[in-house]
Amino acid sequence: MTAQGHFISFEGIDGSGKSTQARLLADHLRAQGHDVVLTREPGGSPGAEEIRALVLQGDPDRWSAETELLLFTAARRDHMERLIAPSLAAGKIVICDRFADSTRMYQGLSRGDLRATVDALHELMIGREPDLTILIDMDPGEGLARAKGRQGSEERFEDFGADLQAAMRAGFLSLAEEFAARFRVIGGADEVDTIAANVQDTVAAFLADRSDAASLL
Amino acid sequence: MTAQGHFISFEGIDGSGKSTQARLLADHLRAQGHDVVLTREPGGSPGAEEIRALVLQGDPDRWSAETELLLFTAARRDHMERLIAPSLAAGKIVICDRFADSTRMYQGLSRGDLRATVDALHELMIGREPDLTILIDMDPGEGLARAKGRQGSEERFEDFGADLQAAMRAGFLSLAEEFAARFRVIGGADEVDTIAANVQDTVAAFLADRSDAASLL
Repeated sequence: MTAQGHFISFEGIDGSGKSTQARLLADHLRAQGHDVVLTREPGGSPGAEEIRALVLQGDPDRWSAETELLLFTAARRDHMERLIAPSLAAGKIVICDRFADSTRMYQGLSRGDLRATVDALHELMIGREPDLTILIDMDPGEGLARAKGRQGSEERFEDFGADLQAAMRAGFLSLAEEFAARFRVIGGADEVDTIAANVQDTVAAFLADRSDAASLL
Repeated sequence: MTAQGHFISFEGIDGSGKSTQARLLADHLRAQGHDVVLTREPGGSPGAEEIRALVLQGDPDRWSAETELLLFTAARRDHMERLIAPSLAAGKIVICDRFADSTRMYQGLSRGDLRATVDALHELMIGREPDLTILIDMDPGEGLARAKGRQGSEERFEDFGADLQAAMRAGFLSLAEEFAARFRVIGGADEVDTIAANVQDTVAAFLADRSDAASLL
């Protein structure tokens, strides 16, 4: 049987703790002996990081939502070709902090009614979803406070008000219903270690299911 | 009646003299009192020029044909939004040195069998063709000699052999048949002034047709 990797994405509003949880999951799986690639979007490969810098630096209005969508899709294509697809082909577990669902939310919902365009472009140029998407769901007020407290100059996408963050939370939960087969929703209000344990249980169940399915082939 | 501009593109293999002819046409039309915007692709707007630099600099293999296609489409979207569409809406004549037909040729033919993807992406994210496309057609051997004699560091797309240039010439002529309503083919082997006169005659006929059509509205 050909090696089969596992593609796991983390999604959630800014400040939800998803980046921390992605890292903790990578540490946990590595300690279990898995070969893990931890990456992020936008970016994740040298070319994609250059595109990320082009998009996120400078005047927030320098790109339209459509141009930004094309640039992020170019970055995703590079990331997929250079890192994600080869890693999966080698049987590794790829953990990605944000993937196409973030584009569905940010470009498709918060920056113009582009959801149909986002989906058509994804189908045309990417054509792959994660096998498992973990949504860290949390109250926007708490998430915003966490995000504002962080260092970092790339605040364009985090400089939204509470109303927009509430809409984003609802949007992510709606995506979780739309793609119920691959989404798992985990509450983000608990202590970090508690959330990490919930993530580990979820991933263990996912890997067991995949193993069962593979054994039937 | 709303102001209606005219969108004219120049296409052709490298060294065909299309850039010179685009400039000469702009000069001629301005001398006639027209409001002309002379631009080029890839690039043509500040954002698109940044994307152009990202694509054309560095290792030729740093981007796949698909990623390059997405980046050029992002640049075209910016160019269209920021310069071409507003200029046309203001009733100007826009002359563009290369447009989507070059993408159909370079990404769609010479770098992978991507023509169907190129067309789908254009339909999804650009959705506009020139009103008139002037193809400067010439013998590849002569075109290559001209291109090699020019200064310039962005030689990635010009560093093709004679066989590929011959295929490009045939491909452009095929596009001219496919989009016969907007394409006009002008021989590029004559003296520059002779070609310029042929271009002027072609554009005069085009503008007269458009004027007749507009008067019927």
